[in-house]
Amino acid sequence: MAWNTNVLVGQSGGPTAAINASLAGVFDTARDLGAHVLGMRYGIEGFLGGRILHLDRTLGDPMDVELLRRTPSSFLGSCRFKLPTPEQDPAFFEDAFAKFEAARVGAVLYIGGNDSMDTIDKLSQWGTDHDSDIRFIGIPKTIDNDLVGTDHTPGYGSAAKFIATTMREIMRDSSVYDLKSVTFVEIMGRDAGWLTGSACLAGTQGNPCPDLVLLPEVTLNQDMLLNRLSLLLERKNTVVVAVSEGVRHRDGTLLCEAAAEAADGTRLDAFGHVASLSGTGRYLASVTRAALGCKTRAIELSTLQRCASHVASATDLAEAYALGGAGVLAARDGQTAMMSAIKRIFDKPYLYDTTLAPIRDVANKERKVPREFISADGMNVTAAFERYARPLIDGEVSSTYQGGVPHHITPLDGDRA
Amino acid sequence: MAWNTNVLVGQSGGPTAAINASLAGVFDTARDLGAHVLGMRYGIEGFLGGRILHLDRTLGDPMDVELLRRTPSSFLGSCRFKLPTPEQDPAFFEDAFAKFEAARVGAVLYIGGNDSMDTIDKLSQWGTDHDSDIRFIGIPKTIDNDLVGTDHTPGYGSAAKFIATTMREIMRDSSVYDLKSVTFVEIMGRDAGWLTGSACLAGTQGNPCPDLVLLPEVTLNQDMLLNRLSLLLERKNTVVVAVSEGVRHRDGTLLCEAAAEAADGTRLDAFGHVASLSGTGRYLASVTRAALGCKTRAIELSTLQRCASHVASATDLAEAYALGGAGVLAARDGQTAMMSAIKRIFDKPYLYDTTLAPIRDVANKERKVPREFISADGMNVTAAFERYARPLIDGEVSSTYQGGVPHHITPLDGDRA
Repeated sequence: MAWNTNVLVGQSGGPTAAINASLAGVFDTARDLGAHVLGMRYGIEGFLGGRILHLDRTLGDPMDVELLRRTPSSFLGSCRFKLPTPEQDPAFFEDAFAKFEAARVGAVLYIGGNDSMDTIDKLSQWGTDHDSDIRFIGIPKTIDNDLVGTDHTPGYGSAAKFIATTMREIMRDSSVYDLKSVTFVEIMGRDAGWLTGSACLAGTQGNPCPDLVLLPEVTLNQDMLLNRLSLLLERKNTVVVAVSEGVRHRDGTLLCEAAAEAADGTRLDAFGHVASLSGTGRYLASVTRAALGCKTRAIELSTLQRCASHVASATDLAEAYALGGAGVLAARDGQTAMMSAIKRIFDKPYLYDTTLAPIRDVANKERKVPREFISADGMNVTAAFERYARPLIDGEVSSTYQGGVPHHITPLDGDRA
Repeated sequence: MAWNTNVLVGQSGGPTAAINASLAGVFDTARDLGAHVLGMRYGIEGFLGGRILHLDRTLGDPMDVELLRRTPSSFLGSCRFKLPTPEQDPAFFEDAFAKFEAARVGAVLYIGGNDSMDTIDKLSQWGTDHDSDIRFIGIPKTIDNDLVGTDHTPGYGSAAKFIATTMREIMRDSSVYDLKSVTFVEIMGRDAGWLTGSACLAGTQGNPCPDLVLLPEVTLNQDMLLNRLSLLLERKNTVVVAVSEGVRHRDGTLLCEAAAEAADGTRLDAFGHVASLSGTGRYLASVTRAALGCKTRAIELSTLQRCASHVASATDLAEAYALGGAGVLAARDGQTAMMSAIKRIFDKPYLYDTTLAPIRDVANKERKVPREFISADGMNVTAAFERYARPLIDGEVSSTYQGGVPHHITPLDGDRA
C-alpha cells in the first residue's frame, strides 16, 4: 500500500561530496514508497522561514537524480542553526510543528553531523512529548567522521580518497629536487584526526606513506618533532608530514593561533566551535626552516577536501545513498528519534549492514581517533587505522563530463528559489 | 636501419602531470628506432655530476611505461640550474661535451620550460660552433603555458582541467548558505594568466563561471574591484573570484607582498624569479571583508595544480607523449637547436600538427595572455580565451587504482639512485 504522506528532507552543516547521494537515497526511496518529497531550502532555518521545495518537480527527470548523486555540496542549501531547548523556547517548537502539520509532513529526514543530530533529537523529543505522529530520522553526514553510533559517516570516504590521492601526488611532487626539504600538508579536522589519518592511505606497495601524521588527539611536542625531522633528513631527501589544522601546543593553544594571521582564523560559529582554522602548516614550515635550515613548504588542502566529487569513493556514495533510503524505510515503519547508521561486518572483503542508532546517543557527542589507531610515539597512525579506513575509499565513480569538466545537476538559484 | 646511438633525456624545472608522458614518448620512440636511452638524474646538473640512469633497464617492463604516462611529477628528478654562457665559462662546455662523448650520446632531449630551453640553446650553440654531431632538442613543458613558438605547452591542459574541475566544485561549495560571501581562489602563474584564465572553463551550460578572473597581465585597481564586488553582491549571494598569485598593485608591488607573511614568500630562485608566491587570495579576502562586511574566504589551489594527474586531460597527455616522440624523430633526422611544438589547425573539432620551433626564438621568452583574450574591463577573460583553452582539457585518463588510490610507477629512490 502506498505511503500517502509528505516526506520533508533537509541538509545541514558543511557540505560534502556525498551529502547529495543521501538526498538522492531519501528521494528515490520515498517516491518508490508512494510518498511526496518536500525539501527544506537552507535547512531547518529556511524551512521555518517558509522556503519549501517540491522535489517531485525539481528532480522530475531520472537523469536529475543520477547527476545529483555525483554533484558535490548541499543541493538544497544548508544552515548552521542551533535549536533552542523546549524549556528555553516552547513557542519555537509550537511554530515548527504547526508548519510541519500545515505541509502535511509525516516524516522529517535531516542529513547532517553532530549539530544536525541535535536538531533531530530536540524535534523528536518534542514530538514524542506532545503525541505527534511525525517521525524524525537523522542521516549521518560529515567528512570529519566524528559521529558516534555508526562505524563511519558518509562523506568521510570521499574526503579520505581525495586526501590519499593528492597526498600521493604531493609526495611525488616534493621529491624531484636533489635537496633536503620538509613539506607540511594541512588537513581539516577540528578535534578529531580521522581525515588527517587518512593521509596514510597514500601508502601502498611501492608507494610511500607520509613520514609523520600529526593528529589533534595528540598534543604537539615541538622539540620532539624537530628532532624527528632532523633524524629523517639524515637518511632521506624528502620528508612529508600530514598535519591536522587542530593540532595544539602543550599549553592548549592551537598552532594556527601562534601563526601571524591567527586573528583571521579563530572566529566562533553558532555552536561555539572555531569556525575556520588555517595556518598550522605555515607555522610548522616556518619553525622548521628556522630550526633546521632546510627548504620547507606548507600546502593546505582546504575546501577541496569536502567537495572533490571528481575523485569520490564509490563505496562512500553507495553508502550515503543506502543510508538515505534506510532512513526513509525506518520512518515508514514507525521509527523516530533514530539515526540511520552503518554496522561493519568485515574489513576485507568489506561488508556492512545498515542499522539504527538512538539519536539521543549521537547528538552533540564526538568520536575521536582511539588510542590503538595512534602509534606509540604519537606521530603516526597504526596498521589498524589503515585496515579500518582503506575499504572506505574503495572504488571510483564514473562522472559524466561536459566540456572536459564533471557535469553536475544545475544548482538551485540562491536568490529566487 | 637501426639508429645506433644513445639518446640522453632529462627533465628540468617544476614538475607537471604531463612531463612523464613526454619522457615516455622519448623513450618509446628512441627504443623503437633502435637507440638506447640514458636518463639524467636531477637534470643537467645531476648528469654533469655523473648521475646517469640506464632507462632501457629501469623501464624494462612495458607496464612501467604505461604507468609512467599516468604518474605525475618528474620521474627522473629535476633541477633549476642556469648554464653559464660560453663566454663566461668555456670550460663548463668542454666538460659537458666530454661527458656527452664519454656516454656516446648522439642526441640530448631536454623536457622543460623557458629556462630549460635556455639550456638547449646554449648547448646546441656550443655544439654547432665546435662541429659536434650531437643534436639538441627541447621538449616543451610547463603548466604556465608561457612558452612562445608553440600553440600551448604540455602540462597546461591537465593543470587547467584540475583548475576548472575544482573551481566548479568550490563554486558549489560556496553557495550552500543563505548569506553573502566572496570566495577568492588563488591560482598559480607568476607573470602569465593562462592558468588563472582557465578557471572560466568551470562554466558550461547550467554551470556558472567565476564572477571575476584577475590576471597578472592587468594591474589591480582595488577600488574598482571592491565596487564591482559590491554590485555583484546586490544581486546574488555568492561571488567567486579567480585570482592569479602574480596580481600587482598599480605601484608594481605584488598583492601577496602586501600580505603579512610576505617575508616568507618572496625569495628569488636561481633565475632571478620570485620562487614562491602566496597570500594574494588571503590579502583580497581580508581587504574585502573589511570594506564590504561580508563573509570572505581564500582558497589556494597550490601545488595540486601541477601534480593532480588523477584528473589529467587525455588530450594533454597524448600531446605530451607525441611531442616527446616528435623530438626524437627530429634528432634522428639531423635537426638540432629546435623545440618540438604544437601547431593548432582547428578549435572544434580540435586538430593539431607537431612542428619544430627554432630554440633561439623560444629560450628566455615569455608569452602572456593577449589583449583579445581579456575582457574590456580587465576583470575577466573573453569567449575567445575559452575557445582557445576548452579543447585542451578534453578527455579523461583511466587511472589504474590500487587500494583506492591511483597507482604510479615506483619512484626512483632519492638517496640511492
